[in-house]
Amino acid sequence: MTTPPLATAILVLGPPLVFKTYETEFSEKFNFLKPWKTPLPLHQFIATHSCNVRAIFCSAVSPVTAEIIQSLPELRFVLASSIGVNHIDLRECKRRGIVVANAGSTFSEDVADMAVGLLIDVVKRISAGNRLVKARVWPRQRDYPLTYKLGGKRVGIVGLGNIGLHIATRLRAMGCIISYTSRTMKPHVTFPFYPTIHQLVANSDILVISCALTEQTHHMIDREVMLVLGKEGVIVNIARGAIINEKELVECLVKGEIGGAGLDVFENEPHFPEELFKLDNVVLTPHHGAVTEEACRNLYDHICKNLDAFLSNKPLGVFGSQEFNGI
Amino acid sequence: MTTPPLATAILVLGPPLVFKTYETEFSEKFNFLKPWKTPLPLHQFIATHSCNVRAIFCSAVSPVTAEIIQSLPELRFVLASSIGVNHIDLRECKRRGIVVANAGSTFSEDVADMAVGLLIDVVKRISAGNRLVKARVWPRQRDYPLTYKLGGKRVGIVGLGNIGLHIATRLRAMGCIISYTSRTMKPHVTFPFYPTIHQLVANSDILVISCALTEQTHHMIDREVMLVLGKEGVIVNIARGAIINEKELVECLVKGEIGGAGLDVFENEPHFPEELFKLDNVVLTPHHGAVTEEACRNLYDHICKNLDAFLSNKPLGVFGSQEFNGI
Repeated sequence: MTTPPLATAILVLGPPLVFKTYETEFSEKFNFLKPWKTPLPLHQFIATHSCNVRAIFCSAVSPVTAEIIQSLPELRFVLASSIGVNHIDLRECKRRGIVVANAGSTFSEDVADMAVGLLIDVVKRISAGNRLVKARVWPRQRDYPLTYKLGGKRVGIVGLGNIGLHIATRLRAMGCIISYTSRTMKPHVTFPFYPTIHQLVANSDILVISCALTEQTHHMIDREVMLVLGKEGVIVNIARGAIINEKELVECLVKGEIGGAGLDVFENEPHFPEELFKLDNVVLTPHHGAVTEEACRNLYDHICKNLDAFLSNKPLGVFGSQEFNGI
Repeated sequence: MTTPPLATAILVLGPPLVFKTYETEFSEKFNFLKPWKTPLPLHQFIATHSCNVRAIFCSAVSPVTAEIIQSLPELRFVLASSIGVNHIDLRECKRRGIVVANAGSTFSEDVADMAVGLLIDVVKRISAGNRLVKARVWPRQRDYPLTYKLGGKRVGIVGLGNIGLHIATRLRAMGCIISYTSRTMKPHVTFPFYPTIHQLVANSDILVISCALTEQTHHMIDREVMLVLGKEGVIVNIARGAIINEKELVECLVKGEIGGAGLDVFENEPHFPEELFKLDNVVLTPHHGAVTEEACRNLYDHICKNLDAFLSNKPLGVFGSQEFNGI
């Protein structure tokens, strides 16, 4: 086994879970720099290796800032282990002609499953029932409130990309009535399209957030939107925390101004809004929609193909990865 | 408002949740006898009213025994608020020519939603994640085990009635590979059929139980079946607890001989197997798959139509109710 020359070093930031899971396999194929394995602060580590780094492989929670990018003169490629790339300074990448690619559709279905699971859980109080049974509250307190049926509910999907489409397919099979908003109307989709979030929420009992976090979508779901959704309305978010104004969401949930929420993502991960911990109508999971065994294997293959292509000067993003050449 | 004559009294046993929810509306329409509102023991209450009772309306957990039936000479009709009628002595009803009817399909979709919700919850550890976040274990313990993808999993459905079909439709939309066993092969169903549970489990990663509890299905899911399902196998039960040998299920789960379980029903309700309370791969809900607002309203309408038909000597079971004229 020959180690690739130092000049093709790939800086790993995070590290992504897939990297930890497949570290041995990855390390046999590529020359990775692993800052978390040295005592050096990150900026010093980067300064030491600055002339060797031609690519970055980063997790969803490792910022790739303008400062980092500017300190790496040979950087040509940033590859995210996530679908969202809001943690990468896309403006600076565009200015420098650095290609940015994401995880493509490697775990779209896994995340869609999570959205559906969270929704059913909130609406049918599964985690709440589980807690009551295991805490021996049941059967002492048998008159638990009635739950709700999914069929017939109007579900507004915010962002109908790969994940949004998988969510729509799943919920349609449960009898939900689907509509969506998105930057543009999708040409081959028959679900009703609303051009704005305000029109969508006015026609929805449930909102499922599955769009990218951008300047345009930051805090798009605010108190005004939530009040229209109303006291029985439910929000599910499997995209990025900051698409919702979390402070206002907490307020609406605590006051009972919306009916419930299923959240896999948060505005300041890994911090969770503690005011929600006591609410049985709120289900919180630690951003693990994508972390299935199968997705991890798919992602490993996807990352290897993209890094191979980059190192052999072949086109990138042809393996299901989206390329982001600016915003 | 005229109260119907005493001779058409309907004995309510339980009472069913739908009765409690719509008691006022029900009581305006029919002449119900409510034993739980008197200090008399049930058998004395029944003895007092024995000549007036022409129908029984019972919950899923109120046994309608041979003894009760024999003490009611005018009994002609037993109407269950549940789909399962295993709590009614069907032999004695048949002998006496008493018609037995159930809740029909009034909440089949609700129960199917519950099955899907429990399955996603177990496979993607939603209740477990929710517990860890709310107990502040996260983010201290960030390396939670990988979960699994639903797509591609082979799901064996045990009993492809109304509920089973709704479950199949939902899981097919999630990319699961469906097959089933049932008393007979369904003529218009394209999913592969296995004539025995042993053949089904040998070809399944997940078992979903949605059949009736009968003498034939009692303890059908035993240790032998579970060992074939294997260490990563998952069982979901939304039908009746005693279809599974619960003692053996607990043993298999505690020893890690199967991968997880989502259970809405138990062998000795309202008692739950406490050995499972500490297992994060087991989700327990208190038999509330059917108790949605919408199902409750549907069931109210269904019960009224059936009681109206019975009291006017019209055919029963024409409103989606199944009739059981023996086993």
